[in-house]
Amino acid sequence: MRVLVPFDAVDPKTRLSAVLSPDERRAFARASLKDVLAALDAIGHDPEVLTTDSLDIDSPVIVDDRPLTPAINDRLATSDEPVAVVMADLAIVTAAALDRLFSADGDVVIAPGRNGGTNALVARHAGFRVDYHGASIRDHRAAARRVDADVTEIDSFRLAIDIDEPDDLVEVLLHGDGRAAAWLREHGFELATDDRVRAVRR
Amino acid sequence: MRVLVPFDAVDPKTRLSAVLSPDERRAFARASLKDVLAALDAIGHDPEVLTTDSLDIDSPVIVDDRPLTPAINDRLATSDEPVAVVMADLAIVTAAALDRLFSADGDVVIAPGRNGGTNALVARHAGFRVDYHGASIRDHRAAARRVDADVTEIDSFRLAIDIDEPDDLVEVLLHGDGRAAAWLREHGFELATDDRVRAVRR
Repeated sequence: MRVLVPFDAVDPKTRLSAVLSPDERRAFARASLKDVLAALDAIGHDPEVLTTDSLDIDSPVIVDDRPLTPAINDRLATSDEPVAVVMADLAIVTAAALDRLFSADGDVVIAPGRNGGTNALVARHAGFRVDYHGASIRDHRAAARRVDADVTEIDSFRLAIDIDEPDDLVEVLLHGDGRAAAWLREHGFELATDDRVRAVRR
Repeated sequence: MRVLVPFDAVDPKTRLSAVLSPDERRAFARASLKDVLAALDAIGHDPEVLTTDSLDIDSPVIVDDRPLTPAINDRLATSDEPVAVVMADLAIVTAAALDRLFSADGDVVIAPGRNGGTNALVARHAGFRVDYHGASIRDHRAAARRVDADVTEIDSFRLAIDIDEPDDLVEVLLHGDGRAAAWLREHGFELATDDRVRAVRR
């Protein structure tokens, strides 16, 4: 199984700009990437980071500056083994959640993310291609049907939560125990529960 | 096992006011309640609806107009069997997700919701009490520790998604297949994926 972790090395997590500087966004995104790589490593995978620019990290790196969809589809078209794609911003992912993804039967195994995303997938069918634009979970169900591939969906909160917006930091503070959660705490973030639950910076 | 489904019969889902009238909110909330009751029924439970006002529905009803926390804690304090609490606004819940909740070992089994909520729980420990205010998942972990109860957390997207805000309707349209999803479609809601994924009403 080939395991790809796409990563934006240049300008990641732009929707966190209201609470993090560009350098901080890069550092936080990298902490989250390392958490994902560590969880994959813990269940015996050797992930490759598919990055938009060179990256100094202790994992194999493939640089491809194209958008996500063609970059992944190139690997799907040319791989002679199953391919998994796990997003780098799954900052509360656990080895147990990933193990459920990889252990599930199905030509195509998909883990829905909030708001229509596909946060992780395993493709064991040679004809399956991705399309990450729009409500990708719906498009991936249809893409699998088109090539007659069986689809299994993984029902996981930890795979569903990607960290895009300031409100998502609440999930990292409540459920994360890796580098991303530590980075937030070291940089002054904590939970506030006054009017509603949110992440504030002191 | 006693299974309680709390329900606001008077003014439910106020944060959907931007897209639904008061009557529509009541109808949608009721559709979601029925989906939750049907999923519980499918795995052999006989849920009781813990409602703030009388309710004409084909399930046992307990009327208690107190806030959620004391209403639940009263039942926890007086029940001589385990008590489960499953929220009525889990509009994409499945019998399979609930089965994972009920099958899990642990004195206290909790399913985290987004933004710190506790969307479902099973209490098998006589000393455990709930507190739904604020980041309840954190408080429930602590409450279990205080009475020396083992805690198991259920990692489920379908248990984590409660329908509070207009953006949450996206999840119902993408992942729901019960009455709540049908109600939305019948009332003109559909998915838009132009700039971002959202639920629009035609």
